[in-house]
Amino acid sequence: MNHPQSVGLVAPQTATFNEALSLKSGASLPGFTLAYETYGQLNAAHSNAVLVCHALSGNHHVAGFYDPENRKQTLGWWDNLVGPGKPLDTRRFFVVGVNNLGGCHGSTGPMSMNPETGKPYGADFPLVTVEDWIAAQARLTDHLGIDAWAAVIGGSLGGMQALQWALEYPERIRHSMVIASTPRLSAQNIAFNEVARQAIISDPDFHGGHYYEHHADGNATGITPKSGLRLARMVGHITYLSDDQMAEKFGRRMRHGKHHFNYDIEFEIESYLRHQGDKFAETFDANTYLLATKALDYFDPSFACGGDLDAALARARADFFVASFTTDWRFAPERSREIVYALLHNGRNVSYAEIDCDAGHDSFLLATPHYHAVLTAYLEGIVL
Amino acid sequence: MNHPQSVGLVAPQTATFNEALSLKSGASLPGFTLAYETYGQLNAAHSNAVLVCHALSGNHHVAGFYDPENRKQTLGWWDNLVGPGKPLDTRRFFVVGVNNLGGCHGSTGPMSMNPETGKPYGADFPLVTVEDWIAAQARLTDHLGIDAWAAVIGGSLGGMQALQWALEYPERIRHSMVIASTPRLSAQNIAFNEVARQAIISDPDFHGGHYYEHHADGNATGITPKSGLRLARMVGHITYLSDDQMAEKFGRRMRHGKHHFNYDIEFEIESYLRHQGDKFAETFDANTYLLATKALDYFDPSFACGGDLDAALARARADFFVASFTTDWRFAPERSREIVYALLHNGRNVSYAEIDCDAGHDSFLLATPHYHAVLTAYLEGIVL
Repeated sequence: MNHPQSVGLVAPQTATFNEALSLKSGASLPGFTLAYETYGQLNAAHSNAVLVCHALSGNHHVAGFYDPENRKQTLGWWDNLVGPGKPLDTRRFFVVGVNNLGGCHGSTGPMSMNPETGKPYGADFPLVTVEDWIAAQARLTDHLGIDAWAAVIGGSLGGMQALQWALEYPERIRHSMVIASTPRLSAQNIAFNEVARQAIISDPDFHGGHYYEHHADGNATGITPKSGLRLARMVGHITYLSDDQMAEKFGRRMRHGKHHFNYDIEFEIESYLRHQGDKFAETFDANTYLLATKALDYFDPSFACGGDLDAALARARADFFVASFTTDWRFAPERSREIVYALLHNGRNVSYAEIDCDAGHDSFLLATPHYHAVLTAYLEGIVL
Repeated sequence: MNHPQSVGLVAPQTATFNEALSLKSGASLPGFTLAYETYGQLNAAHSNAVLVCHALSGNHHVAGFYDPENRKQTLGWWDNLVGPGKPLDTRRFFVVGVNNLGGCHGSTGPMSMNPETGKPYGADFPLVTVEDWIAAQARLTDHLGIDAWAAVIGGSLGGMQALQWALEYPERIRHSMVIASTPRLSAQNIAFNEVARQAIISDPDFHGGHYYEHHADGNATGITPKSGLRLARMVGHITYLSDDQMAEKFGRRMRHGKHHFNYDIEFEIESYLRHQGDKFAETFDANTYLLATKALDYFDPSFACGGDLDAALARARADFFVASFTTDWRFAPERSREIVYALLHNGRNVSYAEIDCDAGHDSFLLATPHYHAVLTAYLEGIVL
């Protein structure tokens, strides 16, 4: 194997679909645009396409960079996975990243113009579900001339999409790769999402979700509920890391070596969290964050089967790769095992790996050797 | 043993201390008042006194009730522990509950008048530490004519006080009972506190901590940062319960049996959390909450010994009862074991119980049989 390389300079594309899309909620969108990126070449048989689904705060910019002068700042979020010589090898696979419906990075979402009002949708953008995302992605699949994905892969909320693809379009996906995910959120998972939502909704700058129309005095750019979004991200971030990793990275280390007896930053962990919150609040849209947490809460393939996950997964025809991480307390290994058992009960081919990694839920984004080795092995085994 | 009974109708008392108190921060208070309650009778030898220290949101009202017509609503927070025939038996012990300095239930705190300005302290109330609380409690100890406590007992932040008593006044405490506690917060613990603080501080109604002076138009009562305090309590509450208990109590149960596709309450866990947040925000003071989270963050007896807990606990002379709960992920059993090991290394007498209870951190407040049995056994063994 050659030394892994970057896919290099990339640029996003968009595809617009003019046919209305009926949503799970009963609402419908008159049409929509999806932002996406592709890496590698679609082969003649159109049999080497892999869809990468993003998680709560991700987007279509999976690999490569936008600016050669600022490679690190403009790098794709799963660049360590996708590229020539990397586990998802672009010399072999045609890889597609897509920004989900309701997103804030180029796909139609709350920031987009509502054709009925001529103003941004804001709070009037309908809530979308994982099923709706798959339906929208299916249009992109047609647009790209792909009958069936060689694989659909994702971590966390992205893993839910990989699973849902196998249920929604069993004939259009050959391998479903579900990483650091869960068949449904627990009460604790929902509770953390609810705190995040309440932080945003109770921010006076939220204006019931129509903040795009509000401007600070003498300021041309709209105000946004930054304070609420910052809190939402801070609490989310705690759940992405493991207790052990936090202890190792930050422990009780103080910024200035002594107590200051005020509410400024004293411990390094406070500095880290505030920085993560501030950065996110500058770049992400609060309405998109809200609706993505609801998509997480709603996801439950077993709901229509009275909670019977075996019955819910009976439709799947794909082979499965499932992976979890030992220190992930957001979606712990036992949640992945529920998926594995239900698939095995349905006679599916399942590869399952429980990876020892101290980085908690965020482990799925890292290039730890064992993790990348099992991903590589599985992906190499996919017949094109 | 008789059937356990209530201590009955109780009333708070106050004690005012006019001598200035120097605080760990370097600040000092010109004098202060502590609210407290007592249950049972001090014996002739003054050898049967037990101090109950409260946790983050507690106060001096430990047992009994204030209103016979509203017993349940006015019941003390540890009423199941304290009373005739209960583990902390008031037929044998003289039990004292105290509201800590900086509190919002009668002791001097941010809501109190600052003699220098004639206005409430607000943000000018100095930050207080567990050590400062012990120093203030020591004045109350003198006031009550008690040379040495038979025991000091507390859970969580209350357990830290029970431990600190043994270090600060080794000759004035015979038994230290440290329950569901930790020798110091982890990075994750601090992180959750920091989210709570940022929620309060970033609430526009916080007014830099001087919200008592602000009034809504046409409203005689001051405004308070309810929205921030509510969020702080919601996130705190998640850490008080166990994942398993939440799953059992709420799971994915929906309020109306189907998805509504909006941000109203859908899952029962959302309803529960919002209710807990609302209730707390109505009754607790945000400045007190802030300073209590800092007292938690700062607590670390080993800090002055370069992190060496064995060295830090060498001063203790008391016997110890330490208890933890299997599902407590805020202060997990291993944190209690750190205390136990350090005490054993110093040759102290230690009883340690790891209690199987599914209620997470809040287990210390419940009357589970095994827990109350070990408490009873230990307390019965205390020689008066």
